[in-house]
Amino acid sequence: MVTLHHLEYSQSFRVLWLLEELDVDYELQLYNRDPETYLAPPEYKALSPTGAAPVITHGDLVLAESNAILEYLLDLYPSDELLPPAGSADRARHLFWFHASQGSMMTFMLMDSIFRIIEERVPFFLTPLVKAILGKASESVIHPRMGALLALAEEHLETQPWFGGDELSIADVSLSYPMESAAERGYITDEHPLSQDWLHRVYERPAFRSAKKKDGRESMVLPL
Amino acid sequence: MVTLHHLEYSQSFRVLWLLEELDVDYELQLYNRDPETYLAPPEYKALSPTGAAPVITHGDLVLAESNAILEYLLDLYPSDELLPPAGSADRARHLFWFHASQGSMMTFMLMDSIFRIIEERVPFFLTPLVKAILGKASESVIHPRMGALLALAEEHLETQPWFGGDELSIADVSLSYPMESAAERGYITDEHPLSQDWLHRVYERPAFRSAKKKDGRESMVLPL
Repeated sequence: MVTLHHLEYSQSFRVLWLLEELDVDYELQLYNRDPETYLAPPEYKALSPTGAAPVITHGDLVLAESNAILEYLLDLYPSDELLPPAGSADRARHLFWFHASQGSMMTFMLMDSIFRIIEERVPFFLTPLVKAILGKASESVIHPRMGALLALAEEHLETQPWFGGDELSIADVSLSYPMESAAERGYITDEHPLSQDWLHRVYERPAFRSAKKKDGRESMVLPL
Repeated sequence: MVTLHHLEYSQSFRVLWLLEELDVDYELQLYNRDPETYLAPPEYKALSPTGAAPVITHGDLVLAESNAILEYLLDLYPSDELLPPAGSADRARHLFWFHASQGSMMTFMLMDSIFRIIEERVPFFLTPLVKAILGKASESVIHPRMGALLALAEEHLETQPWFGGDELSIADVSLSYPMESAAERGYITDEHPLSQDWLHRVYERPAFRSAKKKDGRESMVLPL
């Protein structure tokens, strides 16, 4: 049986959601962040091969890295819907979004977080200067790249309801975290109605709701 | 037939390498960066769905995102060595590194690049201040996370020669770019002899050398 080591307000929520979609038996261990620093507790860092969430254990295996875990779970519990097989109509679309989720969108959302943390931590008299410098970097890198990804999302969601195609795939599961981050931070705007609709469809999945219940937090992403 | 649209000094070099490993027919189109700004040319940006490299075209399909392309090519030209199948001994190790490559290591290397660019572009009298601020962020985020990944790399390379396990897999192909970046920027040090050996093994692959020949550049990564 797989054990999910779930760190509150972290990328591991997606693994919880997938386990609920798969409707399989699993063990859930919940870890809280330090209330002051928001860091993972020392026992979580010791468990995780990379020091970061999510982590699953399965027999002797300790596996980290979100998309590796999602794919490994589909090895254990195969589904042609959640993972369109090679040669299927939705394959290329699924592959693109599954990899763009962690390889591009999460990268820019993490960069956005780090810029915000830097801005908060500098002495107050430096804040305007640092905001101006990082704002320029954000405008020249994060905004155009996120804008291109979200424009493409609108284009794709016009033809099929899920990033995986006609059915929800682990591309959608993976994207839920950076897309919720993008919505909370104002990257998803009125110009992205289909992305907003997609987020609502995600939140209304019965499996997503049971994952939420087990998680007990109001959002996936740490509220800012 | 697949066409690789290869932007010089970019992540698309890995796709070129994989096509050479697969030893299949393909078309290669080479694009140069702007010699002043190092940006991709407008025709490349117009072609790429995300505006970024790499991109392949295959019939009507235009596919971006490095790992999506590597996996798509393995759909077309299956290989149990380059992509250990579900249930095989090297599967979890392959999955971890394949996803950690773009989901973690590339993220930190991109962040490192952006910090360097910010430092270069601020007015000279601000450089020491900005270097101090970004240096602190780098020490608290990039260095510990890269350190954990490289320590894990050393541990894994002690038991098997490739990140994919006993044989080279697309995990290795994917990692070649962030690992070369990590070596050039001083993240891979004398504490990482097995990572250095791995890089040499990569550079000595006959397919890597033919890719280099077709590319014609002295490195994958833009020299700093």
